[in-house]
Amino acid sequence: MNAPVNFAGLEVGYDIPAKPGMDEKDIQTPCLVLDLDALERNIAKMGRLVREMGVRHRIHGKMHKSVDVALLQERLGGSCGVCCQKVSEAEVFVRGGIKDVLVSNQVRDPAKIDRLARLPKLGARIIVCVDDVANVADLSAAAQKHGTTIECIVEIDCGAGRCGVRTTPEVLAIARAVAKAPGLKFSGLQAYQGAMQHMDRYEDRKAKIDIAVAQVKDAVDALKAEGLDCPIVGGAGTGSYYFEGTSGVYNELQCGSYAFMDADYGRILDKDGHRIDQGEWENALFILTSVMSHAKPDKAIVDAGLKAQSVDSGLPFVFGRTDVKYVKCSDEHGVVEDLGGVLKVNDKLRLVPGHCDPTCNVHDWYVGVRGGKVEVVWPVSARGKAY
Amino acid sequence: MNAPVNFAGLEVGYDIPAKPGMDEKDIQTPCLVLDLDALERNIAKMGRLVREMGVRHRIHGKMHKSVDVALLQERLGGSCGVCCQKVSEAEVFVRGGIKDVLVSNQVRDPAKIDRLARLPKLGARIIVCVDDVANVADLSAAAQKHGTTIECIVEIDCGAGRCGVRTTPEVLAIARAVAKAPGLKFSGLQAYQGAMQHMDRYEDRKAKIDIAVAQVKDAVDALKAEGLDCPIVGGAGTGSYYFEGTSGVYNELQCGSYAFMDADYGRILDKDGHRIDQGEWENALFILTSVMSHAKPDKAIVDAGLKAQSVDSGLPFVFGRTDVKYVKCSDEHGVVEDLGGVLKVNDKLRLVPGHCDPTCNVHDWYVGVRGGKVEVVWPVSARGKAY
Repeated sequence: MNAPVNFAGLEVGYDIPAKPGMDEKDIQTPCLVLDLDALERNIAKMGRLVREMGVRHRIHGKMHKSVDVALLQERLGGSCGVCCQKVSEAEVFVRGGIKDVLVSNQVRDPAKIDRLARLPKLGARIIVCVDDVANVADLSAAAQKHGTTIECIVEIDCGAGRCGVRTTPEVLAIARAVAKAPGLKFSGLQAYQGAMQHMDRYEDRKAKIDIAVAQVKDAVDALKAEGLDCPIVGGAGTGSYYFEGTSGVYNELQCGSYAFMDADYGRILDKDGHRIDQGEWENALFILTSVMSHAKPDKAIVDAGLKAQSVDSGLPFVFGRTDVKYVKCSDEHGVVEDLGGVLKVNDKLRLVPGHCDPTCNVHDWYVGVRGGKVEVVWPVSARGKAY
Repeated sequence: MNAPVNFAGLEVGYDIPAKPGMDEKDIQTPCLVLDLDALERNIAKMGRLVREMGVRHRIHGKMHKSVDVALLQERLGGSCGVCCQKVSEAEVFVRGGIKDVLVSNQVRDPAKIDRLARLPKLGARIIVCVDDVANVADLSAAAQKHGTTIECIVEIDCGAGRCGVRTTPEVLAIARAVAKAPGLKFSGLQAYQGAMQHMDRYEDRKAKIDIAVAQVKDAVDALKAEGLDCPIVGGAGTGSYYFEGTSGVYNELQCGSYAFMDADYGRILDKDGHRIDQGEWENALFILTSVMSHAKPDKAIVDAGLKAQSVDSGLPFVFGRTDVKYVKCSDEHGVVEDLGGVLKVNDKLRLVPGHCDPTCNVHDWYVGVRGGKVEVVWPVSARGKAY
């Protein structure tokens, strides 16, 4: 695996939560822990599923923001490249060795457009989303200035209600402008239905994707009629990839959370009505936390609060335990209900975060463990890369 | 002001959102912006209020995690030192030049206790909270090992329901153990009522603090009767400092949020029924964000989502504007309702975050502005220091 960090000068506890070779029990908490066996199984499984559907998988790097995990997904899962949401993330992935990067988002700020246009010089294919004809001239000017090519895909809003255009005529207008613009290449469509990924029932998610697929197919057909092919029709997430992957319309999936899992995604149900974290995917990401106070007999106070996670999608759950429950959260503390008084000070718990993406973004390191030992410590390479 | 960063090698947009001297309009978003005039007025005002009450102010560094802001609070606000919640934060503040640091939290992990005991060697006074007699021997052993003194204050749970003991006999037992332990010094009490700080009504907050003050006074009197003085009786926050500061029992206040303000604190009411962000304190902290898509006429999509803030205490509001409203948030996007269609792509907005502490913790930099120019760029020195 990739080992970009020279640990020699780093002090455990101040700079890093652990060092490779250390016993798991000596890891400094709170920190992110990856179960490497579970992570590798998730990645290999998704690779197999995508291959069987005959499509590509461009893994979503915004979830983990880690060059090391992205390279693992390339090697074990056969991913064709990375998606990310920010130019600064793309810079990190390209500098880290990823050769095919899609910024699955709009880039409008002049300084950001300039940085984006420079990236192909580092040897990477660079793709970006466009949802406004007015963006095309700016991207084209920057690509010409740097003598590079930026591939553009038109973003369709197929239900998420964020960026993207809603109608085929709007798609056509932007695609035509891109196709004519020097320095740009029209490369297809982006259509991610983010709003339905977390609906509990499989049938409800399918109904939403059926609408999206019809909308995207209409655009693909209209583009084809004008001689514009779509090498990329991209979208899909962990709650829907089997729909887009077998639609005959999408050819590039963009799942992210499957690799780590989280509490909010874990709750959604598969075709047979089972939680997806009870068979389809394994929990590979945990916040390791320690009990730091037990002054009240029925409450253990742990050291992972709001600065060790994002609770936008709910509180974490304690992995593998039903006798204790994480019930409350403040800046630096979590309250764990311990009615049986089973926990002691310095006991460690693995928490499954409510929402993996913004939780990973508050940490500087992933501590990868296997068989009770720390095997790797990976930087969250693009942490804080929001610009 | 403190200037610990050599900007020479840092690239705007990749490493940092701005450089000193830059026009405000060129700042790369999303990022944290400090209105330096407002910040300085808040700090000076609190310094004056605390002085008038005849108590000390140990500012809470966990809120901003910034050595530079802490030094400004020392210089302009006369603060006597810093509180923080983690040993790794204390290390940052001590290394940054703060000479008097209280870890207003329990430290139980053996490696963390060892690091804490080393800190006085760097020339700082180190104080820590204790809520368990079992902790005393560990702290004492570490202080003796390093030949240092750790000051201990006993934490009372006066309503927050987290760490701390609830009864005076428990306080006495721990205080006696500390007083007898080599390497330790008994220095008083910690009693922060965190649960009431955000109650809207002044009278409701006062009622809660009256209970806390009575509980703390009982402990102070009982300790005095045993010959144990309390050089520190610490607590209080931005929603209550006038109660503790005039109680005759507390002598050290620990306010943090007053310096920056946030949407959740701003909503609480002062004695006259006015929001505290409409007179008592000024909004000095903002998330600067840019419009990056306006494909739908009534919605502007901005570039600050869950990775640029914590929404645990609600969504941000748009500062100084009533014509547009931040209504929804996903990982990298915010949806701003723009019914009048007044926003254009690349327009910038200042958001007041719902909760300042965990919002600051996702950013690497504060961009300090004055008169339309970037004056300073300060690192969030203890960002991610959670261990």
